[in-house]
Amino acid sequence: MRILGIDCGSEKTGYGIIETDGRKHRLVISGVVRTSARESLDARLLKIACGLRDVIVAHRPEAAAVEEVFYGQNVKTLLKLAHVRGIALLAIAEAGITLGEYSPLEVKMSVVGFGRAEKQQVQLMVKSILGLSEIIESEDASDAVAVAICHATRTMTASRRPLQSVAAAV
Amino acid sequence: MRILGIDCGSEKTGYGIIETDGRKHRLVISGVVRTSARESLDARLLKIACGLRDVIVAHRPEAAAVEEVFYGQNVKTLLKLAHVRGIALLAIAEAGITLGEYSPLEVKMSVVGFGRAEKQQVQLMVKSILGLSEIIESEDASDAVAVAICHATRTMTASRRPLQSVAAAV
Repeated sequence: MRILGIDCGSEKTGYGIIETDGRKHRLVISGVVRTSARESLDARLLKIACGLRDVIVAHRPEAAAVEEVFYGQNVKTLLKLAHVRGIALLAIAEAGITLGEYSPLEVKMSVVGFGRAEKQQVQLMVKSILGLSEIIESEDASDAVAVAICHATRTMTASRRPLQSVAAAV
Repeated sequence: MRILGIDCGSEKTGYGIIETDGRKHRLVISGVVRTSARESLDARLLKIACGLRDVIVAHRPEAAAVEEVFYGQNVKTLLKLAHVRGIALLAIAEAGITLGEYSPLEVKMSVVGFGRAEKQQVQLMVKSILGLSEIIESEDASDAVAVAICHATRTMTASRRPLQSVAAAV
């Protein structure tokens, strides 16, 4: 299964797609849609929408995952982030792919095993999990891949549970 | 000039288009895109995006106006609103039309002449300004038309100013 992870941000929106069977994950692509603070918000949203649509059309993910909004930030930053998150959710809904939403804590727990992990620890674990020769340089792209890995672990482990229960019952 | 006003909301997003020369305004269309709280946020955003795009394609506004986010609300409501606002700004940017943003205070001042006006007062003034036989029943649609009127008053008055200055200088 191909899973798209998105890390929303008004200046840099990271994305990453993994191919996975729930245990082994392979990186398909990762990158960042950049916008400039000099552009108007509507122009930036258009650029982000086009960038995400291009990635979806080119790599056809079957599921997508996005982080939930983390309330503890400055309200102005949070509101700008929510505008971008709206665009990301729209791009996913337009493509007709299923959506998973996870808290930053869940993503870090799932990838590093520790909810308060630093961004660099996430980068190192993403590199290790995917068997990459180098870390994904952009933290935003690496975070997006981490969200995709979290979704793979959560949903594909969950979908194995009934089978395990049957086995246990037998 | 045709101006589209949008009043964002996750359950009801109002829209209204006026035809105006800056002094006289005529209502072209107004309405509401409704979504259900039972739907997922991404499905609701898709419905709102499709609704706004349909209105833009059918009525070809040349400018658009949206209210700025009003900080004094509950953060959860504010964040949901910002997701929808992102969709509205994207629909405007996709159509390549210019965008004006106004605070709720500016809109009320412009339509009612009083920044703390009630929604019903806005409805009555919108009816009066547009010479309608009845109020626009939906408050959300009426608010959207009020934003369009505010944009007409602000931009088209502003564009007349240089001429007045020349006349005064002569």
